[in-house]
Amino acid sequence: MTYCVAIHTDAGLVFLADSRTNAGVDHISTFRKLTVFERAGERVLVLLTSGNLSISQSVISDLSEGVTETEGLWAARNMFEAARIVGDSVRRVHEREIAALRAHDVDFNVSLILGGQIGGERCRLFQIYPAGNFIEASEAASYFQIGESKYGKPILDRVIERRTPLDDAAKCALTSMDSTLRSNISVGLPLDLLVYEADSLQVTHFSLIREGNPYFRMLSSTWGERLKQVFSAMPNPVWGDAESALSLSSGTAQPVRVTPSAQPAAAPQPAPMPAAAAAPPPAAPPATIQRAAGDTSATPPGQPSMPE
Amino acid sequence: MTYCVAIHTDAGLVFLADSRTNAGVDHISTFRKLTVFERAGERVLVLLTSGNLSISQSVISDLSEGVTETEGLWAARNMFEAARIVGDSVRRVHEREIAALRAHDVDFNVSLILGGQIGGERCRLFQIYPAGNFIEASEAASYFQIGESKYGKPILDRVIERRTPLDDAAKCALTSMDSTLRSNISVGLPLDLLVYEADSLQVTHFSLIREGNPYFRMLSSTWGERLKQVFSAMPNPVWGDAESALSLSSGTAQPVRVTPSAQPAAAPQPAPMPAAAAAPPPAAPPATIQRAAGDTSATPPGQPSMPE
Repeated sequence: MTYCVAIHTDAGLVFLADSRTNAGVDHISTFRKLTVFERAGERVLVLLTSGNLSISQSVISDLSEGVTETEGLWAARNMFEAARIVGDSVRRVHEREIAALRAHDVDFNVSLILGGQIGGERCRLFQIYPAGNFIEASEAASYFQIGESKYGKPILDRVIERRTPLDDAAKCALTSMDSTLRSNISVGLPLDLLVYEADSLQVTHFSLIREGNPYFRMLSSTWGERLKQVFSAMPNPVWGDAESALSLSSGTAQPVRVTPSAQPAAAPQPAPMPAAAAAPPPAAPPATIQRAAGDTSATPPGQPSMPE
Repeated sequence: MTYCVAIHTDAGLVFLADSRTNAGVDHISTFRKLTVFERAGERVLVLLTSGNLSISQSVISDLSEGVTETEGLWAARNMFEAARIVGDSVRRVHEREIAALRAHDVDFNVSLILGGQIGGERCRLFQIYPAGNFIEASEAASYFQIGESKYGKPILDRVIERRTPLDDAAKCALTSMDSTLRSNISVGLPLDLLVYEADSLQVTHFSLIREGNPYFRMLSSTWGERLKQVFSAMPNPVWGDAESALSLSSGTAQPVRVTPSAQPAAAPQPAPMPAAAAAPPPAAPPATIQRAAGDTSATPPGQPSMPE
């Protein structure tokens, strides 16, 4: 799997990518997912990739091999055009690969983040989907994640705003990555961190963060310790006290309870059940089930390996 | 969607469930997902459900309607047998529903957590899969989650151990729920919280936590504020300093870079690309791409709605 995050703030852009790839847990390898297209003083484009590695490699090849400086991303007049060029590459790879992939029941699975700056235009950040279509980050939604995004989302939601300083945004991206690394073995070091200062038009801040990196180690242990301290310092629930409002079950709030039926159902257990709770078999008083009405077709996980 | 979590500690069990159900974002409702089977002084069983609501309702019906006190969960001699009875219900519902669901391309989507205590046996906690098979929590893996589990996993991983006091475990479950509520709109209040003290053999601590609940509101705001304080207090990265080890890009660590090709590829762009990077067309020096080898067939998300 993969975890990549890119943040757009007033001061510039932050890109962070892990480097673990896996085809099953017994085939784990390292692949760097952050690629830079830089013409210093004129343009910096940073591409983050996740998905099937053969597909993301094909997209990068399509964008780079045999592409001269008057073509492709080197010639894009603005970031929107650059995003369209990347989307077109995704579509070309799709066209070439999809029949063979379908024959093997392999999804066309690739997601990309493209950010950067071209000439006098402002910094911009895009997320590009497998269909080659894309969206741009906005004031209200100023970060994108691809891959294993959920573990690291809460801290981004709490911290990131458009006016967050660039160093804070980098620290937040690393904290988000730390939570993901801790909870998901398919994401792993080293990390590619690139911080782009708006209007610099060159890569000035890049770090390849390996296992023993002192800053990341400090961040990881400090964050873990402080979280536990904050957690311990929060008051515990007090039960049955009117102020705390975690009422005892003797109060009005009751869990949904099932009680045994007085008589067995008309039909024996393995036979079909009554079609609806509204029409219980006359012979058997229904079990006491008190609950609110509702309806769903939610899609929770299938059968995860343990522990999920 | 759903988020349910159950924690097994030395002191007992904690169960927490949200109550949002949805069939698309325009069809959101409330349904309680925590169900209690209690014979005070003898057994307490708590069932958490997630998945397609029609399936989880059918499972609960199968376990309760027309089931007398000498049958089913009321007669299970121990928690393992209870888990098997729930698994058998899941299988019966599968048998009855699967043909019709398949005809409409609907997955048989249900996951359950069963925990509790029967007679003199210890507390036990199980997760039951759509196939009716199940696993039990252990010393090393002492909690289970179903539904939208990822947002709330990091805090559980940091805090929960087998010796965590019951109140701390309840506080942790609520903190985990808070992160999930904040990041995912398909999970919502009210919450069912049930804390079971080992060997009590009855439900003594239950709370239905609604929007204005003072304890949950305090927890949510305190946790959010303190997280930000801790985050702010952590040192920012210092670039280019040997001690901090976030080296500038002028150091040895470089991002993967693409440079323009000197000449265009032999074939024009939309035509097939060279099959492998190892065999570039003789006419065109390949673009400079420096990267480590790797391979993957990871499976990141498809096309999420924005922001993911």
